[in-house]
Amino acid sequence: MNEALRRRKARAAATAAGVDGLLLTHGADVRYLTGFTGSNGALAMAGGRAALFTDGRYTTQARAEAAGLRVVISPKPAAVAAAEWLAERGIKRCGFDAAQTTVAGLDRIRKALPGKLRRSFFAPTDGLVARLREIKDADEIARIRRAAKAGCSLFDVALEHIAAGVTESEVAAQLELAARRAGADGMSFETIVASGKRSALPHGRATAAKLPRRGFCTLDFGVLLDGYCSDMTRTVHLGKPTTREWDVYHLVLEAQVAAVAAVRPGATCGEVDEAARSVLRKAKLHTFFTHSTGHGVGLEIHEGPRLASKQVQVLEPGMVVTIEPGVYIPGEFGVRIEDMVLVTASGGDVLTAASPKAWTEL
Amino acid sequence: MNEALRRRKARAAATAAGVDGLLLTHGADVRYLTGFTGSNGALAMAGGRAALFTDGRYTTQARAEAAGLRVVISPKPAAVAAAEWLAERGIKRCGFDAAQTTVAGLDRIRKALPGKLRRSFFAPTDGLVARLREIKDADEIARIRRAAKAGCSLFDVALEHIAAGVTESEVAAQLELAARRAGADGMSFETIVASGKRSALPHGRATAAKLPRRGFCTLDFGVLLDGYCSDMTRTVHLGKPTTREWDVYHLVLEAQVAAVAAVRPGATCGEVDEAARSVLRKAKLHTFFTHSTGHGVGLEIHEGPRLASKQVQVLEPGMVVTIEPGVYIPGEFGVRIEDMVLVTASGGDVLTAASPKAWTEL
Repeated sequence: MNEALRRRKARAAATAAGVDGLLLTHGADVRYLTGFTGSNGALAMAGGRAALFTDGRYTTQARAEAAGLRVVISPKPAAVAAAEWLAERGIKRCGFDAAQTTVAGLDRIRKALPGKLRRSFFAPTDGLVARLREIKDADEIARIRRAAKAGCSLFDVALEHIAAGVTESEVAAQLELAARRAGADGMSFETIVASGKRSALPHGRATAAKLPRRGFCTLDFGVLLDGYCSDMTRTVHLGKPTTREWDVYHLVLEAQVAAVAAVRPGATCGEVDEAARSVLRKAKLHTFFTHSTGHGVGLEIHEGPRLASKQVQVLEPGMVVTIEPGVYIPGEFGVRIEDMVLVTASGGDVLTAASPKAWTEL
Repeated sequence: MNEALRRRKARAAATAAGVDGLLLTHGADVRYLTGFTGSNGALAMAGGRAALFTDGRYTTQARAEAAGLRVVISPKPAAVAAAEWLAERGIKRCGFDAAQTTVAGLDRIRKALPGKLRRSFFAPTDGLVARLREIKDADEIARIRRAAKAGCSLFDVALEHIAAGVTESEVAAQLELAARRAGADGMSFETIVASGKRSALPHGRATAAKLPRRGFCTLDFGVLLDGYCSDMTRTVHLGKPTTREWDVYHLVLEAQVAAVAAVRPGATCGEVDEAARSVLRKAKLHTFFTHSTGHGVGLEIHEGPRLASKQVQVLEPGMVVTIEPGVYIPGEFGVRIEDMVLVTASGGDVLTAASPKAWTEL
């Protein structure tokens, strides 16, 4: 049971953080530590004991998915029931994730506690589980590899549908149909198909716009497979490019390749970001690179670490990150190229290598 | 401009709540009041002035979508930049949504304020915009009608694909392809296709399971069209039913029709819930109806009001709610039937009436 091992690690992290209990409500954290995939769950950990709280919609599912763990179906909000259980078990100081708990939610939970516990009970232990989740275990890496491979297979399908006059949404639809057929539970985020001038929108969701006879088409998409996300971007060109389009594409590619090459254990996230950014700076394109170079991927599409300017966090084996520099020239065009890279013992393993990054003209 | 009118209403609600400014960060609230659809935005309202804060990814998009509104691109977290702007404009007491703000987020914003403002600046005004959003305006009703109609067209497509041996995920994929072709930006939630024993899972997402030769297949799905969600459920049967399956289906249908008939201005949400629940209680099936009868739908798939037991909130014209009782017999089967209903001046208008609810055997 990976989940039992992960709970032991969480317990050790809790002890190190000076708390004797944990209340976890963030879906991905709860799933990571229990296997439960429902939308409403709270995990309470008190020493060696743990219990999963959810509601009547999930009775059957929770017992099947969190096998071996105590499951409590409660009419109360799951976090309230979990907090009461923790208090009853004598927990004095309970870690919770302040970045995943709303002000109103914490207030409601506190009110359910005995008066003498209300002020002192909760201590923020933000990112305690998120940090464990940054380093993927063998089972997770296998799942992420499968998700990344499925993602690459979609790009091949998309290429068959990209043509002048086809709508962005039809390309997205075909890609999503292929995703389901490849076994995906769905997409890991809203599919981006941004063509022509819309390619200058870094987050240009697919619309009814028709692909142009000449211009870029950026595809940024990912699948959800077995709980894990893939994430990749390719930018292709319809028709003959201008010299500027050709040049920008190859500079973004150079920046992307440089950042991929910088991925190794011990490198800081800021160094990887700078590897991409410096290429674009030399070409005076850096002001058009308006986001960070990448992010971790796993159960969620955006996880730690954050590969951004000056980030001092060090890459470690088992991390899976995206490398996705882009250049966006408002009103003209944009280019982004993105791979998923696993940090290995000696460097980086590109998980989305099955999809070529060389200039593609359709 | 609907958004300008909505901001005036929000301003009036803020004044009534005793605050002279508002800081809004919840995506759907920000979209409702500005038109901006990006994933990172904060709206600051100070008297008659308002400004939308976002980051460099959204420069072009924010200026296009929130035309007529001041747009500020900031390297700081949007909410922090917005709070500083509010403080600079002399706001003394700023409403915020404690149910949409994390403990860590509020802490970060507070730290950015001048010391003397930190303790007194923020006052929870939870649901201030959510309550405005419960009553849909004419433009919203038109969009929701279109979304509901598109949803119904998907059910027809799904029926063409439902057959023994076809996987749940293939049915979902065909439904989602049809959604894109109908102009949807995507699905409003993860498509549920739950067949055979899996129909007893109220939230059974489509899996690789094959549809059985005999048994129920529950489809619960919705589109996102022009920003608005549709939501509907139909349960069909493959092959000949058992007497029990037939009886349970017709009792759920009776409960659903009773609740739809109970929708009218002035009815409480609890009364509508009870209309469904009492039918199932008489048939001794109420213990298998493990969730509430419905919820509001709009920019988000789950909005107010909440149609649950003992809820005293009163229905008002312009609300759009789901009516979706279900019976789930663990290990055996489940049935759910769901429509979207617009509360009119005199009763309810079923927006998903194009999809028949009568027993369907395939």
